[in-house]
Amino acid sequence: MKIYGNPMSTCTRKVLTVFAEKGVKPEFVTVELNGEQKQEPHLSRQPFGQVPALEDNGFALFESRAMCRYVDQQLPGARLVPADAKAAATVEQWISVESANFTPHAMKIIYGALLEPMRGLPVNTAKIEEGRKALETTLGIMEKQLQKNPFIAGSEFTLADICYMPYIEYLYACKNGDIIDAHPAVAKWWKGVSDRKSWQIATGKAN
Amino acid sequence: MKIYGNPMSTCTRKVLTVFAEKGVKPEFVTVELNGEQKQEPHLSRQPFGQVPALEDNGFALFESRAMCRYVDQQLPGARLVPADAKAAATVEQWISVESANFTPHAMKIIYGALLEPMRGLPVNTAKIEEGRKALETTLGIMEKQLQKNPFIAGSEFTLADICYMPYIEYLYACKNGDIIDAHPAVAKWWKGVSDRKSWQIATGKAN
Repeated sequence: MKIYGNPMSTCTRKVLTVFAEKGVKPEFVTVELNGEQKQEPHLSRQPFGQVPALEDNGFALFESRAMCRYVDQQLPGARLVPADAKAAATVEQWISVESANFTPHAMKIIYGALLEPMRGLPVNTAKIEEGRKALETTLGIMEKQLQKNPFIAGSEFTLADICYMPYIEYLYACKNGDIIDAHPAVAKWWKGVSDRKSWQIATGKAN
Repeated sequence: MKIYGNPMSTCTRKVLTVFAEKGVKPEFVTVELNGEQKQEPHLSRQPFGQVPALEDNGFALFESRAMCRYVDQQLPGARLVPADAKAAATVEQWISVESANFTPHAMKIIYGALLEPMRGLPVNTAKIEEGRKALETTLGIMEKQLQKNPFIAGSEFTLADICYMPYIEYLYACKNGDIIDAHPAVAKWWKGVSDRKSWQIATGKAN
């Protein structure tokens, strides 16, 4: 399998974590985020001009959460989406919470505090505050779940955990990790999952 | 299985369509959207105070897309998420496009043109225009896909089709269906899928 992505991209890191959990190193083609992702040949792989995209012997796929599920299903090793219907449904529930109630708010903070300033714009305090306020509700709900369970979808590490990780890494990178630290069970979970070898590999801290 | 939802809610309609495709009528408990959804006992079922939620003999689940996958897997009948890994991945890809690149834009239009005015606010032209502009890109990509395939994820009707339907219904209801009609393959697909008996049942037009 071949991944067209960028090592700094949150969505690329999700997919790389799944590969690393399986002990597999995919062929990796770097797509620069300087506009290269909005042009051919990448637009034919990903019509929205985003990274990553996957190619598997002529089969083409985009959208990181779909890619993660595919890689999990195709490669041997412990399943990151369980086969049992109830366990799988709980994983899907927490992936939906991530994509609807966590990531949009986290991205507001990351844009306002990091990505906009990187483009020469001022720090966007209003956007950061809006994101922090909205994330507070979600983190409260995650805190309750993680007080009772070691992982976000229950007793096992799953794709649901992986889906949150790249955004939490960037919250710390843009000096807003205090909202994670304010939730002890979330902070403890983050420490555990970010210490995993797979995450260290996906983020270039280990080989 | 018991569904706690509201017949007018987009997310409730997704789940009801899956049940109807399987020929099963779930036990349905109406949760009024007048604040009842933000209070106990509903908050214990859905901590974000949204509808729907599902209960299956003590197993509790929220998030409509997770509920749809669960109902599909548990009930007999043609699978709405195929078992084949590549076909399933393509379904997941188009569900991700829906949740990331279609629904947030469509909801801007629906809020600006329908839901805010229902609450006594003026029509929000700026929000409507913002949503329409963003949706244009996604509809262009869907048009290309539907020129080559009868359904959004390929040759079969799947959960991916269902996920778009409630939002398209509301785009027409708030007099913004012209952006669908401007894309002939999308409009033809919509006519076909919205004529299905399951959709007629989910939206209360048939029994």
